[in-house]
Amino acid sequence: MKIDWKPGTMIYPLPAVMISCGSEPSDYNIITASWVGTLCTNPPMCYASIRPERHSHAIISRTREFVINLTTVPLAYSTDWCGVKSGRDCNKFEAMGLTPGKASALLAPTITEAPLSIECRVRDIIPLGSHDMFMADVVNIQADDSYLDEQTGAFSMEEANLLAYSHGKYFSLGEMIGKFGWTVKKS
Amino acid sequence: MKIDWKPGTMIYPLPAVMISCGSEPSDYNIITASWVGTLCTNPPMCYASIRPERHSHAIISRTREFVINLTTVPLAYSTDWCGVKSGRDCNKFEAMGLTPGKASALLAPTITEAPLSIECRVRDIIPLGSHDMFMADVVNIQADDSYLDEQTGAFSMEEANLLAYSHGKYFSLGEMIGKFGWTVKKS
Repeated sequence: MKIDWKPGTMIYPLPAVMISCGSEPSDYNIITASWVGTLCTNPPMCYASIRPERHSHAIISRTREFVINLTTVPLAYSTDWCGVKSGRDCNKFEAMGLTPGKASALLAPTITEAPLSIECRVRDIIPLGSHDMFMADVVNIQADDSYLDEQTGAFSMEEANLLAYSHGKYFSLGEMIGKFGWTVKKS
Repeated sequence: MKIDWKPGTMIYPLPAVMISCGSEPSDYNIITASWVGTLCTNPPMCYASIRPERHSHAIISRTREFVINLTTVPLAYSTDWCGVKSGRDCNKFEAMGLTPGKASALLAPTITEAPLSIECRVRDIIPLGSHDMFMADVVNIQADDSYLDEQTGAFSMEEANLLAYSHGKYFSLGEMIGKFGWTVKKS
């Protein structure tokens, strides 16, 4: 039987990415977010929604740059910690032993330990209520070459062991169920 | 070592939801999408980005309503099939044996077999390039009460066995790694 619930935010599973920002080492910060996603394939665009009271909100509003770093099961502790602590009180890179890397198109740092860092330049900031939406263009991606297939050049997301977030809990990915389009492929 | 990639859409894992739309049984349709997410907690807002050439794009542009139905491992076949076929050529509900349900706040149908159906009313349509972004308010949620804990009333996403999409492949969720905030909880 179906029952009605009050409106809420129940789209899952989601990524739990670490967003890095700042324009020089003294203001580098990390915020974890799941209100992120892809908006458009071509041009490649994405978004991150962040509460105005968060420390990273002011940084990204000023620099109009951020990096979406994919997170993995080994990075789960840092992912959770960077989501509940504030960069006003600590240097999150130092506290978690994470290494700021040099982005190719931005002043904002990447997180070197992440398998994939998506460099984003803000196009618009849209106030919505509890969160402001940072709508952004993807301007470069840095990939850890240890996950690249030497033959094909393809990036192996499976080997990267990505972290998923679902309704208050973090999960690894489980069994592969199928490839996109498998239901219409000729055998 | 980090290597640069051309800009692209690499945020993963994502949900692969079935979006149901239409205002009467003759135009009911389903489109599968991963370019979806939560934009704001309060008011609850989400989005779905859809290519203008897709059949559902015209329907949702006209009705300004859609339902995001979460998908599960048992629904993986329907999820993939509804993502590659067009509603111009077939009735996807009938072809996949899915049951249109009555939404509480919309004319658009829910998918009864989904554990959770999120009823959305379009606020804005933002053209971005290959995709248009349908920015929407969540106006109601229907939940399958078989996933509700009798004691707490909480919805068990784990029992719903949600499907994740990552870089061209569908996955089940695996091991639970931790609960949000576990790294700062006092033991």
